[in-house]
Amino acid sequence: MRGKFITIEGTEGVGKTTNIKFIQDWMDSKKLTYGCTREPGGTPLAEQVRELLLAPREESVCNTAELLMVFAARAQHLNQVIEPMLGEGAWVLCDRFTDATYAYQGAGRHMRDDLIRDLELMVQGSLQPDLTLILDIPVQIGLARASERSTPDRFEQEQVAFFERVRNRYLQIAQDNPQRCVVIDASLTLEGVQAQITQTLETFWETV
Amino acid sequence: MRGKFITIEGTEGVGKTTNIKFIQDWMDSKKLTYGCTREPGGTPLAEQVRELLLAPREESVCNTAELLMVFAARAQHLNQVIEPMLGEGAWVLCDRFTDATYAYQGAGRHMRDDLIRDLELMVQGSLQPDLTLILDIPVQIGLARASERSTPDRFEQEQVAFFERVRNRYLQIAQDNPQRCVVIDASLTLEGVQAQITQTLETFWETV
Ligand SMILES: Nc1ncnc2c1ncn2[C@@H]1O[C@H](COP(=O)(O)OP(=O)(O)OP(=O)(O)O)[C@@H](O)[C@H]1O
Ligand SMILES: Nc1ncnc2c1ncn2[C@@H]1O[C@H](COP(=O)(O)OP(=O)(O)OP(=O)(O)O)[C@@H](O)[C@H]1O
Ligand SMILES: [Mg+2]
Ligand SMILES: [Mg+2]
Repeated sequence: MRGKFITIEGTEGVGKTTNIKFIQDWMDSKKLTYGCTREPGGTPLAEQVRELLLAPREESVCNTAELLMVFAARAQHLNQVIEPMLGEGAWVLCDRFTDATYAYQGAGRHMRDDLIRDLELMVQGSLQPDLTLILDIPVQIGLARASERSTPDRFEQEQVAFFERVRNRYLQIAQDNPQRCVVIDASLTLEGVQAQITQTLETFWETV
Repeated sequence: MRGKFITIEGTEGVGKTTNIKFIQDWMDSKKLTYGCTREPGGTPLAEQVRELLLAPREESVCNTAELLMVFAARAQHLNQVIEPMLGEGAWVLCDRFTDATYAYQGAGRHMRDDLIRDLELMVQGSLQPDLTLILDIPVQIGLARASERSTPDRFEQEQVAFFERVRNRYLQIAQDNPQRCVVIDASLTLEGVQAQITQTLETFWETV
């Protein structure tokens, strides 16, 4: 049987990477075989593309180039890691996926949705996550959390209005895809967030 | 007035880079303002993508990822360099362009032409070169010339049959686009090759 594909999404500093560990513990408790990975990235080449995407640079990066690099990394990741694992029956937990492209390159950068959809079809065919956790938080709180971490990357250097568009698009995606997406209130304490995640995973588990 | 966009194409070792210098001398003789550039590459980011594309690596690179990286670099190159120069009236001379994508990723890697055409439209709209010189040579002669230069990159490690497909596609492109493409017999001495190039450029010059 094919594995399940779970993605975790949300704006900067919302707690995606923090909660990946928590979800791993849950998957361990279910004795699942699984892999954890992230986008952009997940293979040596795709991680190199990630570095090119995130590096702040003097040169202004054209939106089409950014979008194509995101999908190039995704094609490699799907081909080398995600598809083979799912095919072998392992679950895959991924820190960001294509919803992030609609949110950041689509809403954030104003790239046309139909271009993104064409590339999505080219790269992933009909593959979609089975479950997507969208961690939601007021933009300012997430940015404040993230800013305590490291020097800002090329995306983190964007204005608040950019992240407002990203956040709103994520909420729209959740509304449009209720069978796949669950919005998690990420403004609570970590315990409060993780209680919601556990409930979401247990509900999903009953459908598997 | 918009500048003219000239591209130079052909399989490995056919003499593209060698003859760029010669074409520069010709453009100097016409007192043209021009820039010389290359693909993949031509901007700092696009050159970094080129490095990722050419580097031999353990990981097998999926064809879709390769194709998207090529067009990502092209989008950046067009946006930052080629379009601005042409718009300012400068001529642009480019070592490889989209014909190379149809030849290498299309014929070489068996990527579908309609996918390439969709990406071409997304990235360059209606922009096409005004003149394309296709240097043609039996594959083995070109590979022998190129092999004396440096350690083979990821493309140069391909089999002869791959380059035969690339060469034949270039010849097909020339047949399909006679108003834009001129095939140059590159198996002659450098003087013989350059005599053909001069004649092609002078004929083009009369139409400008
Ligand atoms: N519920 C929470 N309450 C308070 N702080 C939190 C909470 N969740 C995570 N944090 C903290 O917020 C910061 C950002 O968390 P994390 O790196 O997991 O976010 P992220 O969504 O992965 O960010 P990015 O989008 O930049 O990768 C970390 O310092 C983390 O410890
Ligand atoms: N007409 C010619 N006769 C003999 N040798 C040539 C001729 N033209 C070029 N060469 C030599 O062949 C080698 C390859 O030439 P060059 O690097 O210009 O090819 P290229 O088409 O740019 O190759 P690549 O596709 O690898 O970039 C060089 O050593 C060059 O000096
Ligand atoms: Mg993170
Ligand atoms: Mg060359």
